[in-house]
Amino acid sequence: MTISKQDIQKQNYFFEAEQSFESGIEEEIIELFTSSGKANPHDIDGLVDKISQNFLSINDANTDIEIDSLLGSFSNSKIPVKPANIKNYLKYLTNNVIDHSIHTSSPRFIGHMTSALPSFVLPLAKLMTAMNQNAVKIETAKSLSFCEREALAMMHRLIYNFSDNFYAQHIQNSQSTLGILLSGGTTANITALWCARNNSLGAKDGFGGVEEEGLTAALDFYGYKGAVIIGSELMHFSFDKAADLMGIGIQGLIRIPTNSNNQVDIQALREAVVKCHDQKLLIIGIIGVAGTTDSGGVDSIAEIAEIAQAAKVHFHVDAAWGGPLIFSEQHRHKLAGIERADSVTIDGHKQMYLPMGIGMVFFRDPDLAKAIEKQAAYTMRKGSFDLGKRALEGSRPGMALFLHAGLNLIGLKGYEFLIDEGIRKTQYMADKIFTMPEFELLAKPDTNLLIYRYIPESLRELVVKNNLTEIDNQLINQFNEKIQKIQRQSGRTFISRTTKTTICFDREIPIIALRAVIANPLTTKEDIDAVLSDQIQIAAEVSTVIS
Amino acid sequence: MTISKQDIQKQNYFFEAEQSFESGIEEEIIELFTSSGKANPHDIDGLVDKISQNFLSINDANTDIEIDSLLGSFSNSKIPVKPANIKNYLKYLTNNVIDHSIHTSSPRFIGHMTSALPSFVLPLAKLMTAMNQNAVKIETAKSLSFCEREALAMMHRLIYNFSDNFYAQHIQNSQSTLGILLSGGTTANITALWCARNNSLGAKDGFGGVEEEGLTAALDFYGYKGAVIIGSELMHFSFDKAADLMGIGIQGLIRIPTNSNNQVDIQALREAVVKCHDQKLLIIGIIGVAGTTDSGGVDSIAEIAEIAQAAKVHFHVDAAWGGPLIFSEQHRHKLAGIERADSVTIDGHKQMYLPMGIGMVFFRDPDLAKAIEKQAAYTMRKGSFDLGKRALEGSRPGMALFLHAGLNLIGLKGYEFLIDEGIRKTQYMADKIFTMPEFELLAKPDTNLLIYRYIPESLRELVVKNNLTEIDNQLINQFNEKIQKIQRQSGRTFISRTTKTTICFDREIPIIALRAVIANPLTTKEDIDAVLSDQIQIAAEVSTVIS
Repeated sequence: MTISKQDIQKQNYFFEAEQSFESGIEEEIIELFTSSGKANPHDIDGLVDKISQNFLSINDANTDIEIDSLLGSFSNSKIPVKPANIKNYLKYLTNNVIDHSIHTSSPRFIGHMTSALPSFVLPLAKLMTAMNQNAVKIETAKSLSFCEREALAMMHRLIYNFSDNFYAQHIQNSQSTLGILLSGGTTANITALWCARNNSLGAKDGFGGVEEEGLTAALDFYGYKGAVIIGSELMHFSFDKAADLMGIGIQGLIRIPTNSNNQVDIQALREAVVKCHDQKLLIIGIIGVAGTTDSGGVDSIAEIAEIAQAAKVHFHVDAAWGGPLIFSEQHRHKLAGIERADSVTIDGHKQMYLPMGIGMVFFRDPDLAKAIEKQAAYTMRKGSFDLGKRALEGSRPGMALFLHAGLNLIGLKGYEFLIDEGIRKTQYMADKIFTMPEFELLAKPDTNLLIYRYIPESLRELVVKNNLTEIDNQLINQFNEKIQKIQRQSGRTFISRTTKTTICFDREIPIIALRAVIANPLTTKEDIDAVLSDQIQIAAEVSTVIS
Repeated sequence: MTISKQDIQKQNYFFEAEQSFESGIEEEIIELFTSSGKANPHDIDGLVDKISQNFLSINDANTDIEIDSLLGSFSNSKIPVKPANIKNYLKYLTNNVIDHSIHTSSPRFIGHMTSALPSFVLPLAKLMTAMNQNAVKIETAKSLSFCEREALAMMHRLIYNFSDNFYAQHIQNSQSTLGILLSGGTTANITALWCARNNSLGAKDGFGGVEEEGLTAALDFYGYKGAVIIGSELMHFSFDKAADLMGIGIQGLIRIPTNSNNQVDIQALREAVVKCHDQKLLIIGIIGVAGTTDSGGVDSIAEIAEIAQAAKVHFHVDAAWGGPLIFSEQHRHKLAGIERADSVTIDGHKQMYLPMGIGMVFFRDPDLAKAIEKQAAYTMRKGSFDLGKRALEGSRPGMALFLHAGLNLIGLKGYEFLIDEGIRKTQYMADKIFTMPEFELLAKPDTNLLIYRYIPESLRELVVKNNLTEIDNQLINQFNEKIQKIQRQSGRTFISRTTKTTICFDREIPIIALRAVIANPLTTKEDIDAVLSDQIQIAAEVSTVIS
């Protein structure tokens, strides 16, 4: 629909007739706003749909454009004076941004925790934006606040499985917080530890608590010499951020070694807890990892729960990646004990197949998040249903729509299928790698992350005999780094890389590993075979250069 | 497009023929994924478009449904076992969620900082979700990382206006951070203060810095007795969160009184700075507010800059709301001095008319954010272009697309028009209120926020004579709270409320104010008149109850 100047004036959108504006700007801008809700002018919606569909239909992981040549296209620091023509802008966007974006939904992009999404999220994204609710408060998100609480309660029940009565009491009780929806797993983890810290160092006997009086005073009041967070050395780097931000310092993040299955060493963890108690250090939280970022390993949650409970310490499970294993009858047992966690992080944008920007933290005790509650006169009233009163974030979008839709449109059985399939496919890839002389499997996959590496031909016999020197290992590392970089650059397929350490002659040796993450339900055996063939082909090119 | 069972098997999506799944689940789920990028089955896209258009066409602020009756519709804590039919789910969503959502884009919803959006954001939302980039790292957001840097540089230049040379050097330099895009103004403010704190208490002479060794050790090493943040008493409540989270405690948030224009008292601020220095307290940052949340007041930024510079303290401007005044030749002067701020917060989802979920923080010094840099082996490599290496958040969506599009499709002149119009309309409303006996204007509007209150007839003469007692004032407060609640509930129009304090006989008296926020370019004089008429009509009903 195009609006004429007369229409616009008739509507009285402009408050002054005489204008200091360059002619035409007013009409152009008002047209941008009045066409919302109606079909866009020049069928922009249809055009963008076509661009989206085209993007999603490409099988390659990326184009092979070099970073250096991309940079040059984004060197304009001046905002255009006048509004650009939308069709021209879309052409620009297509050529410069969309064409060189990563095909995270490609079945051959199996290197990161971002994969294909179900189709219903596309129209819902438009709907969510049209609704433009602000979930911070009831006055800007009425039904959506309750819808969010319902979706979070469903997830809470999946984890904790309390009684009907419990959920009837808390699901829509403004004083209860079963979970908080936020932008991602990092802020979820930080929020969990913030609650834990404030709860351990609360107001008491005239002391205002850490929230009011700060960390130094609070530790002093409670008789602690310092504060720490304890977890596996494979904890996500969001815990570094938490320790830094909360003022305990990264050296207060105690990293316990892991066993060969990438699980925290339980005995060492137990000893660390005792040592902290002896040294009068407050343990803000013990972290269990359900799906390490680098290899998918799941800690022995039940054993950690036991330790935390005995020590009366907050137990947080970072299940950002691995949480959805709970949907699977076959794999749920790997998370056994998660129901004993005081708080749990799960990401919606990882194994729940929802768009980027959905983190969640759940609390065993619906009162725990009171420890971070804030109020403000212009909003966030005490006793209200305003979701922002207990949150790290303020204004935030209605991402709950996606979560609610995912739970309803995929369902328990649908999620179970997705989880089981990913693990089955990973097993296929692991078996395949195991039989191929070109590759070495670096760990038996626990879930759907797989780490392995390419071995140059001259060293394969030594690998079989377990006879590699440190120099050999360095050479293999160089080789694998090179393979991964070339693979990423050429863009046909994608596998990421990480660095593992192994102990050899009492020394820590770094091992560069190729890292597959298989979550895309559209990835076939042929795709997995193609990814491995691509690496072998690249390795042949690398050989001629390095050897 | 519907996919037959044979098609799916041909594609080898399933890795095992024998299934433990209930029949049909596999096909249903795979169909959800394979239809992405193609038209959705049963024309779901068209259906959702219609739902969105219908939502956007409604002029009322909300339905009049009672909270208590809404609650009942969201009491299901069990995830459905099987996937729901999408059409049925959309019907459910429409009846329960969409119908009772807030019409934030209604021209008569003029009470919060959320208003109408330009139409291009709707198709872009779908595109962004289809692309599903993860802006945390280059490997999941290639061109988009550079596009984001470009858009942030444009905003940086608007604020700081450094030379061409400066931008050429930093715009695409992996070691430079001109700004960080994040989910909202709260996390932007926290990030700014986190950088400031870490920068003030950095590593030195063998000491690891606050990041490594924590706040207590750092203050001790640098010889401080504590740490504070100083700003106006009208600072946003995100600073309470920052003070709490960072371990300095909310009592470390020094709130300086404001003058009758809602601006921080400069003399009191100066004295507070001196006092902190005398008491050996580290001032992490001095905050200037450019657009207070409750009334839109803008601090005297240049004078605060002077104080901060003389005291060698980090100066942060929270321009989440007011920042875009800089687009306007007529109103830019209100922000004079903002270019001297060390960091500035601006929200994209407020006066830049972009969807919810876009906060930004800008840094004068492109090196400052190094103070919070983190690395991880599986991602975030040093020296890389990974945007997540200096960020509070981890995985996050490609919201930069909206920012880049807004700057290009609205442009400098378009934003200027939007800002100027909002302020003009607010002036109209203020003038109107001033002439109406029913209302009292509580402050001359500085920008496009307006606070006023209704005065019951029996008290109007006393107001004119400035002769209200405290009891009278309490009655007026009750009256206005009631009006706002009924207005919100009836849903025809919407104005928010806040509580101001005024000093009377040396006592703080709370004044409940009605609060208008006028940013919707489609709001007409008739809409403003209708909002005021609605209040007068509601007041008549309230009168019969209270009197």
